[in-house]
Amino acid sequence: MDHLPRLARTLLALALVAAPALQADTPAHTPTAKELLGKSSAQEWRAPDPQNLLVMQLPQGQVLIELAPDFTPLHAANIRTLVREHYFDGLAVVRVQDNFVTQWGDPEDDDNGDKSKLRPLGSAKAKLPPEYTRALDPNLPFTPLPDGDVYAPQVGFSEGFPVGRNPAARQEWLTHCYGMVGVGRDNEPDTGNGSALYVVIGQAPRGLDRNLAVVGRVLKGMEYLSGLPRGAGPLGFYEKPEQRLPIRSVQLASELPPSQRPDIEVLRTDSATFAALIDAKRNRRDDFYRNPAGKIDLCSVTIPVREAKARP
Amino acid sequence: MDHLPRLARTLLALALVAAPALQADTPAHTPTAKELLGKSSAQEWRAPDPQNLLVMQLPQGQVLIELAPDFTPLHAANIRTLVREHYFDGLAVVRVQDNFVTQWGDPEDDDNGDKSKLRPLGSAKAKLPPEYTRALDPNLPFTPLPDGDVYAPQVGFSEGFPVGRNPAARQEWLTHCYGMVGVGRDNEPDTGNGSALYVVIGQAPRGLDRNLAVVGRVLKGMEYLSGLPRGAGPLGFYEKPEQRLPIRSVQLASELPPSQRPDIEVLRTDSATFAALIDAKRNRRDDFYRNPAGKIDLCSVTIPVREAKARP
Repeated sequence: MDHLPRLARTLLALALVAAPALQADTPAHTPTAKELLGKSSAQEWRAPDPQNLLVMQLPQGQVLIELAPDFTPLHAANIRTLVREHYFDGLAVVRVQDNFVTQWGDPEDDDNGDKSKLRPLGSAKAKLPPEYTRALDPNLPFTPLPDGDVYAPQVGFSEGFPVGRNPAARQEWLTHCYGMVGVGRDNEPDTGNGSALYVVIGQAPRGLDRNLAVVGRVLKGMEYLSGLPRGAGPLGFYEKPEQRLPIRSVQLASELPPSQRPDIEVLRTDSATFAALIDAKRNRRDDFYRNPAGKIDLCSVTIPVREAKARP
Repeated sequence: MDHLPRLARTLLALALVAAPALQADTPAHTPTAKELLGKSSAQEWRAPDPQNLLVMQLPQGQVLIELAPDFTPLHAANIRTLVREHYFDGLAVVRVQDNFVTQWGDPEDDDNGDKSKLRPLGSAKAKLPPEYTRALDPNLPFTPLPDGDVYAPQVGFSEGFPVGRNPAARQEWLTHCYGMVGVGRDNEPDTGNGSALYVVIGQAPRGLDRNLAVVGRVLKGMEYLSGLPRGAGPLGFYEKPEQRLPIRSVQLASELPPSQRPDIEVLRTDSATFAALIDAKRNRRDDFYRNPAGKIDLCSVTIPVREAKARP
């Protein structure tokens, strides 16, 4: 550990076994994520429904996106249609705006694009109702995060996604946290269809909440979308075609032979281990963290994912 | 505007002139940032003190960092010493951890490094008092942000930087928002010295607040630090030396001939225009944003910077 550079050395220390408690009720170390996940049970993990799992192949590697049809069902259905008909294959990442979003879709869908070359949407719909929020449903799981929130009266987690809630308006919605995927649109609220998608790559732009349809979350490969050169054009669009990142293919896991489906699991957000992880991060205290925050922001909570083959 | 892709088309619309008000007290459009900045006065901008302005030359371009000596004076002084003695010239960006930090310094300051090859710190101190917080000082400017905060009893802005405050503890501190620069250290709180620096590149890791010395903010060139491939090693360290990004030089603006000093200005965070910008973003309503958030998070506030040559 001695030669690890500063911040690093520190953070690695979190992986060490917790020291004995100083007092009975004041642990010297909060448990590490590794320790807590190591004690999780198989039942606390779920494999995403292959119908909701997008497999995007980029030159650098695979990106997995889980759709959230309980929040944006019409958009999920339209995206499935686009994907089944290979709409995205050969399209590109066209825009990377620093501290905001990475966006992909049809490069011709641009000011400088050739409208006559726009890829047809096939059987998919060109317009969809907004689905920016949905009606509160007591049958939908909700695990509240009691730490407060600047933007929403209530926040928490539902089926593996961060959500905001307004009980007075009887509405809930997926929030624009890091790694969440949304549907680009024109000014009119019904102009989104899923052919242009973006992912949040910076500080959560929560001002977009309730103004766009959020359709899911990147489970794997986020670094391929966030670690790209920023576009120098207006709004982060790449100015030259050769700067765009080609999308080799986007497929639905359900369309793949079972042996080729991604072997991935997400920690259930209504599990005891998830609650323990949040609490450990909220009150983090160890050899490095001397002043625990005591609170945690919705978008600072990590929802763990693991390759199923890593199961004990 | 017709062929701009969805989200883009939308956001561009914000640059249009506001439509006439629907009612006297309900503007149809909040003013755009461009409109508000266009009406700002020269007195609302300040040029950073050249003694506090670091000029880092990377292969892709220039990064400017403003130090905050009112919050971390000993660290600012030590960093100035390191920079004057050319400590950083030829060192490298060694770590990019997704949704967390980009870190630079001496590549030998690593588990795999050769301790005998560590670059000497010269006249700079190897250890400094922590400076994680400072005593509240009524003489230090503070513009509160009344929207609430998950982590701190009070938040706002001081001299161009986002700050948290705890009036009961009579403390204030710089917060880990996107683009803020901090000092890496080992476990012991006095082991930071400024030779290893990091910048926040994702969701604000506010759990680091009051646990590390925050020394300033990137004013320009943030995209060169955020848009890098993520390191595949533990904590995002690059595994191969050739993956590191070389730092050509870091200089203090005050050491440059006046004609070569960066020509940059920062909007004063106690100005009327800054308050108007926050309010417009908080209540954003226009052809695209139909559901204004009504609130804004500390780390979602943009502190505008302009090249002085762009002055009207």
